[in-house]
Amino acid sequence: MRKYVKSDFPIEKVRRFLEPGPVVLVSSAWQGASNIMTLGWHTVMEFSPSLVGCVISSANHSFDLIRRSKQCVINVPEVHLIDQVVGIGNSSGAEMDKFAEFKLTRAAGAMVKAPLIAECFANLECKLVDARLIQKYNYFIFEVVKAHAARAPKYPRTVHYRGEGMFMISGPPLNMRRKFKPEMLV
Amino acid sequence: MRKYVKSDFPIEKVRRFLEPGPVVLVSSAWQGASNIMTLGWHTVMEFSPSLVGCVISSANHSFDLIRRSKQCVINVPEVHLIDQVVGIGNSSGAEMDKFAEFKLTRAAGAMVKAPLIAECFANLECKLVDARLIQKYNYFIFEVVKAHAARAPKYPRTVHYRGEGMFMISGPPLNMRRKFKPEMLV
Repeated sequence: MRKYVKSDFPIEKVRRFLEPGPVVLVSSAWQGASNIMTLGWHTVMEFSPSLVGCVISSANHSFDLIRRSKQCVINVPEVHLIDQVVGIGNSSGAEMDKFAEFKLTRAAGAMVKAPLIAECFANLECKLVDARLIQKYNYFIFEVVKAHAARAPKYPRTVHYRGEGMFMISGPPLNMRRKFKPEMLV
Repeated sequence: MRKYVKSDFPIEKVRRFLEPGPVVLVSSAWQGASNIMTLGWHTVMEFSPSLVGCVISSANHSFDLIRRSKQCVINVPEVHLIDQVVGIGNSSGAEMDKFAEFKLTRAAGAMVKAPLIAECFANLECKLVDARLIQKYNYFIFEVVKAHAARAPKYPRTVHYRGEGMFMISGPPLNMRRKFKPEMLV
């Protein structure tokens, strides 16, 4: 499977990977157990601190691992991992080791104990910073504390979920910089 | 400019439009004033009630209109509106009527007083249902109470923001239904 050469990436700029709205793989670990879930309900919330909000249903095996460990890694896959994306979203970590089942490689994080998925284009190490909407909405607010991203390709081919088994693959870039005010080019 | 023929759309299925992560145009009105803002920081939060979370910076003129009226409309533009998307995001409603400036047409909502943008592919009428994260995170939780969507095209060409003036245009569909468990095909 494709391997990437990765570098540290500025945490205040991770919106580059998340704001376009790709499906992500969220990895977690707690007391010897680890898991991966497929997740499409996320949003950037702030540049610095680098905040991301995620809806993680309490029906997921990952819910308790993340809630108890207060950590996770948000991994951004490209389209060649679509079978893993769908397979992980249609199975339960209570019944299998998803890393083994889906032939994915654990990599060690710098700031969290949750494993990074080596085969993903970008890996965002996250710590839970606000738990107050978990009970009502399953809504976790994370701070990205360390980010790793592939040096190439410049524009990853991400997958975006529409529901009912249908995805959209990311298309061409569109440069509109000339129409922006300089101060808006963050 | 392109006009759509629209139908009512099931509110519990609006993830179809939002989960892929497009930039949206949020329209609002309060005491005779109306405005439009460009927004990329949003996530679906629940199917039913149909909940959507949005980060709306307090630096925006729209912030007070939405906070006070407790309403907005989330409008999904296609790529042919890119000049409006960028222009609206790089100007302030405190200084202009954005509907007039950007040649967009107000349409009346069924459930909210905020105007719909007729030129957008989909229009989601929203009411504010949870304000508790507004002060700390500028985070608004809305319930979609009425949805309107164009009957065609089946796959809108949406735009997705990467930051620094760069967008991604939505690409081809990818049907993975055969790999889903039946109960996961929501």
